Amino acid sequence: MAGSVYGTIFKLSTWGESHGKGIGVVVDGCPAGLPVQESTIQTYLNRRKPGQTKYSTPRSEGDTVTILSGTFEGLSTGTPISLAVFNENQRSSDYSAIAQFYRPGHADYTYDSKYGFRDYRGGGRSSGRETTGRVAAGAIACTILKELGIEVYAYTKSIGPIVIDYQKCSKEATFTSPLCMPDPEASMQAEQYLMEQMQDNNSSGGVIECIVTGMPVGIGEPVFDKLDAALARAVMSIGAVKGVEIGDGFHAATRNGSDNNDAFYLDQSNQIKKKTNHSGGILGGISDGSEIILRAAVKPTPSIARTQSTVNKSNENIEIQVLGRHDPVIVPRAVVVVESMVAVTLVDYLLMNMTTRMDNIKNFYRK
Amino acid sequence: MAGSVYGTIFKLSTWGESHGKGIGVVVDGCPAGLPVQESTIQTYLNRRKPGQTKYSTPRSEGDTVTILSGTFEGLSTGTPISLAVFNENQRSSDYSAIAQFYRPGHADYTYDSKYGFRDYRGGGRSSGRETTGRVAAGAIACTILKELGIEVYAYTKSIGPIVIDYQKCSKEATFTSPLCMPDPEASMQAEQYLMEQMQDNNSSGGVIECIVTGMPVGIGEPVFDKLDAALARAVMSIGAVKGVEIGDGFHAATRNGSDNNDAFYLDQSNQIKKKTNHSGGILGGISDGSEIILRAAVKPTPSIARTQSTVNKSNENIEIQVLGRHDPVIVPRAVVVVESMVAVTLVDYLLMNMTTRMDNIKNFYRK
Amino acid sequence: MAGSVYGTIFKLSTWGESHGKGIGVVVDGCPAGLPVQESTIQTYLNRRKPGQTKYSTPRSEGDTVTILSGTFEGLSTGTPISLAVFNENQRSSDYSAIAQFYRPGHADYTYDSKYGFRDYRGGGRSSGRETTGRVAAGAIACTILKELGIEVYAYTKSIGPIVIDYQKCSKEATFTSPLCMPDPEASMQAEQYLMEQMQDNNSSGGVIECIVTGMPVGIGEPVFDKLDAALARAVMSIGAVKGVEIGDGFHAATRNGSDNNDAFYLDQSNQIKKKTNHSGGILGGISDGSEIILRAAVKPTPSIARTQSTVNKSNENIEIQVLGRHDPVIVPRAVVVVESMVAVTLVDYLLMNMTTRMDNIKNFYRK
Amino acid sequence: MAGSVYGTIFKLSTWGESHGKGIGVVVDGCPAGLPVQESTIQTYLNRRKPGQTKYSTPRSEGDTVTILSGTFEGLSTGTPISLAVFNENQRSSDYSAIAQFYRPGHADYTYDSKYGFRDYRGGGRSSGRETTGRVAAGAIACTILKELGIEVYAYTKSIGPIVIDYQKCSKEATFTSPLCMPDPEASMQAEQYLMEQMQDNNSSGGVIECIVTGMPVGIGEPVFDKLDAALARAVMSIGAVKGVEIGDGFHAATRNGSDNNDAFYLDQSNQIKKKTNHSGGILGGISDGSEIILRAAVKPTPSIARTQSTVNKSNENIEIQVLGRHDPVIVPRAVVVVESMVAVTLVDYLLMNMTTRMDNIKNFYRK
Repeated sequence: MAGSVYGTIFKLSTWGESHGKGIGVVVDGCPAGLPVQESTIQTYLNRRKPGQTKYSTPRSEGDTVTILSGTFEGLSTGTPISLAVFNENQRSSDYSAIAQFYRPGHADYTYDSKYGFRDYRGGGRSSGRETTGRVAAGAIACTILKELGIEVYAYTKSIGPIVIDYQKCSKEATFTSPLCMPDPEASMQAEQYLMEQMQDNNSSGGVIECIVTGMPVGIGEPVFDKLDAALARAVMSIGAVKGVEIGDGFHAATRNGSDNNDAFYLDQSNQIKKKTNHSGGILGGISDGSEIILRAAVKPTPSIARTQSTVNKSNENIEIQVLGRHDPVIVPRAVVVVESMVAVTLVDYLLMNMTTRMDNIKNFYRK
Repeated sequence: MAGSVYGTIFKLSTWGESHGKGIGVVVDGCPAGLPVQESTIQTYLNRRKPGQTKYSTPRSEGDTVTILSGTFEGLSTGTPISLAVFNENQRSSDYSAIAQFYRPGHADYTYDSKYGFRDYRGGGRSSGRETTGRVAAGAIACTILKELGIEVYAYTKSIGPIVIDYQKCSKEATFTSPLCMPDPEASMQAEQYLMEQMQDNNSSGGVIECIVTGMPVGIGEPVFDKLDAALARAVMSIGAVKGVEIGDGFHAATRNGSDNNDAFYLDQSNQIKKKTNHSGGILGGISDGSEIILRAAVKPTPSIARTQSTVNKSNENIEIQVLGRHDPVIVPRAVVVVESMVAVTLVDYLLMNMTTRMDNIKNFYRK
Repeated sequence: MAGSVYGTIFKLSTWGESHGKGIGVVVDGCPAGLPVQESTIQTYLNRRKPGQTKYSTPRSEGDTVTILSGTFEGLSTGTPISLAVFNENQRSSDYSAIAQFYRPGHADYTYDSKYGFRDYRGGGRSSGRETTGRVAAGAIACTILKELGIEVYAYTKSIGPIVIDYQKCSKEATFTSPLCMPDPEASMQAEQYLMEQMQDNNSSGGVIECIVTGMPVGIGEPVFDKLDAALARAVMSIGAVKGVEIGDGFHAATRNGSDNNDAFYLDQSNQIKKKTNHSGGILGGISDGSEIILRAAVKPTPSIARTQSTVNKSNENIEIQVLGRHDPVIVPRAVVVVESMVAVTLVDYLLMNMTTRMDNIKNFYRK
Repeated sequence: MAGSVYGTIFKLSTWGESHGKGIGVVVDGCPAGLPVQESTIQTYLNRRKPGQTKYSTPRSEGDTVTILSGTFEGLSTGTPISLAVFNENQRSSDYSAIAQFYRPGHADYTYDSKYGFRDYRGGGRSSGRETTGRVAAGAIACTILKELGIEVYAYTKSIGPIVIDYQKCSKEATFTSPLCMPDPEASMQAEQYLMEQMQDNNSSGGVIECIVTGMPVGIGEPVFDKLDAALARAVMSIGAVKGVEIGDGFHAATRNGSDNNDAFYLDQSNQIKKKTNHSGGILGGISDGSEIILRAAVKPTPSIARTQSTVNKSNENIEIQVLGRHDPVIVPRAVVVVESMVAVTLVDYLLMNMTTRMDNIKNFYRK
């Protein structure tokens, strides 16, 4: 397995370590005839790129994408699109200390136990840098979705104790906030909070909310391949995500059916709509035509400069400090990763859904 | 797709509708030499079976399992195990009304939109009765896990506003509570609460917690096939589940790294352990040897006898009442479904993990 | 794995042993709105059913199919179609001898080595009776293909030394020949030949040719999922098949490019056609609009009444006779199995192909 | 789909076009702890590389492999191994003519029909150059097999009318023959034959035989995932292969059971062996411990300098000549491709088989 392949029809295969020669993804199953350009993909990668604000690691990663295959004269050909971001400067000399112990909250111990050893340079494959491949593929998926009138948007809903109400915000404000938090006042409070955490050699968690508009009704498959199940897996597969909820999520567990059911009605153009959207746009695992709404809980960055207890490879209890500068919060950089994972999942499910009805199949082949 | 197949090596294919001839599952990839008996599977199915308490629908479903293939002299042969529960009494006459409108909170509208029509008898494939196949397979998965010293246990953590602290409970109490709630006092309060909801023609949601003990370190695959991602999908694929969290879950989003990191230490037998378990037994998508802990948010039963607004197939806004008697809460019957989905997922990942290291492969084939 | 699941979108999961409670298949991913009736499926199963001529085993297998799920008012609902053939009389008493040794040419030895033991009653899962599930699913696949104007037809091309030239035959003659051999004279010669083999306690091999008409251009995926690769696997997965070829097949290996290339031309209606069809309807792994032509080499029935050398479970060299009456040739009954495997493969690939082009996807969702 | 991903546990994802920036493969699921070195992989690529003899195209392709990820200090880490061969000189200027018409025997027409357009430079993804990725992955698979004592060897069995009997050859002679034909005399005759074809502006087909030694008993899964079915697909997925047979293959179709069955016996060390190997090492889809033997029929190179009839994009019947120098036979360069596809398939099946028996699973996890 190894677990770096994703999707049924729109299929990703990602590769690369934090401090290796590069990071990349092969997208197999991208429909032919889609405009695919490095500049578009770069826009997405730049949102994930570190070193842009004081709340993300100042290491310069570069993150310049190259299209290695699968396009011809600017369009996807239907064959695998290989995308790579080559590392500009590979330094591994300063990771000798980390090789000897297991950082709390990291995958050092579990990788060593599973594989017998690990590429300890910058966390190797378990580094957040792995998400570069996902975002590159996500950029392609978002391009497909836009052609279908579907938009995936995510933002920072909370950082530590600071929570915002998106209903009161303008989406545009997301892109001017260094924390992707569209409430300017809360964004500043959160900056202040993070500053305190950094001074305290600490870090913070937060919540990302993702909203999908323009989804047609009927996407998702019954039983195991419910759309919400697929989205939960997609988002939970992002390192540091510890919880996922759809619509009212955990809040629904405290409520009554009369409050939680969304009543249907006919709107003025005789379309079936829902008066509320507690379901988060999915009923019985299938999109219901409303906005899809999901939230991801992101744990605090495990790399903190405080002294922590752990164990080393010589089987001794030791105290360590994880040196270097690290993001005090993962959330803002993970926003585009959530968007990407949601987008690649939706594309896969939209494609699968095309084969659902005999009349559609006949129309397709009988023309 | 159609979505009723699950797993990579330990593979389920479930089938059946609420009011059809039966419900079943084919398990392909069950290792050879496992004791598989109808009586063991029946024990699991009985926990899901309705009509056992006043908090579940009094319809008598029978739910008697038959093994149709894949065993020989009481042991699995390594070939597909086909399990079926045949419906004893198929009644479809009284579902004519339901055929005409879309019940709020149900999949009627999304199925119709996706497929062009639906089997409206009892919800067809979207009925909770679909989970019978999952539980039958789950019973086999649990048998495998037990042979490996792994136990999967779930219980009702909350119903509506009543929440329990499992640390203060004895596991045995789960099996004497009609609500699978191991705190006897809270269980009685929850019964009282449900009684009120029923009198009020209403229903309630709740939370199920699942705890896995005995898991070895190293299970789970990096990136997309993280163990927590797989479990999130598994549990979110159960109808009515709207949220999943691992370890501290959404609570972790509000905390600091210094509180959330689990320090490692060597115990008296020189084993690496964690002082705390905020991670819920999974680090970097791979089991860390602690208990795996997850929670599922279950929405309130959408079938309520209250008058609700909806739309019918003649495109009219109407008021309806969903008649018949329905579970006022899904949680207690879903407890064994959560256990089942967790178990089948763990078995699949345990099997995949056997192929991870070259030295293990050489030992296996060089003996 | 276990290997009894097939397909990506149109997915089969088969189950059952020769002498167990029954044989069946779950078809997940059948498009909604397809007429599915037991009588149609029965027609296909009857072609596979033994005991119909003196060249097939006179055991009465019944083979009556039941639809257990997935249809509503005669149409597929889009959810799993479960089909079962229950065994009418399970006799296992007379298989005690077979349990003790390994029949040459059978899977007794390999199953025992792989699984540690085997269901020896009638060969268990390795029996040709396993193909019942494939044919039941094949009947559904053929129904889909017919709605798209595609027909899959197979016939007996040779039995032992008797080979026919299909160009000189009428297809209808296939259905009046007890050997599915559409050349009446050759069919009688083959009957004579088989009679001699039976008297000699021997058996015969043969070749099945399959011809698909009406295939659209463009079906098949590059590289690993070439249509011919998929068909080769599909057909080679049928027990007793030892070779598969497409178009000119092994004959092409002896020829020159100038003879083997099929020239393109425009026909009177300005359609692109090929002057010849050495390629067997597939170029670069993708259907080219000509007839798809493949052949399968079927080995002689391994069950023969002659004395043979083998080994028993007490590790002794012994001489055995495989008693009972067996088909002197597998070919005629395997004809419908080849058709079925080709049909289920084509359906899966036709469905996948719908997602190939961005303009088609936009048309689908933008309507 | 798109079809460039292969395998269940040992998974390849290949990418790249003939005249793009490069060709590569991501191998996900390679066990950790395997020595993986560019020099080893290069050895395999060199065998596929053109321009080495006068019977292969003199274009200099370079074909220098780079490991981009997945190894650490010379060993596989268990995470994806990304391998790339970057094209040194991308020339596309001289392919303008080819863009306008459909070469007979090539995939030009089918790609255009499927995708709406094609990358016509050197055949794009349909070029034989695509197999570079397969061979790079095959080198890794062969390294794994060698550690298990398994060897995959292929050779040229025939070119046009010249066929050799491998029993009379020494394997070493394969590597000194420019045609990979281990009978030196026949090799020279075949060279002479090819020379004639070239002078005649023609090309030739041939047969590759592959022999696997050291395979343990028990590899392969029943029903659809039979080992022979998997190998047939693997080998048929190589462009230009039109037929595959196992053991006696099509010859078995003409024989009797008494000749075709392989009798079992106990050898001197009390191991079960077969007196003959008509089955080609596979019984019931599972390896029987004998050598696995398969043959692939390779069609003549479709690119020939002779005048041929075809159709252009302006919908005109035209005459063309495919200029440039092309291999007069594909067979010798395809030998290592066959080895590679067999090797990656065997590795995948060996890994899957580890999960077959409950006692093995218990041993693995209970240690």
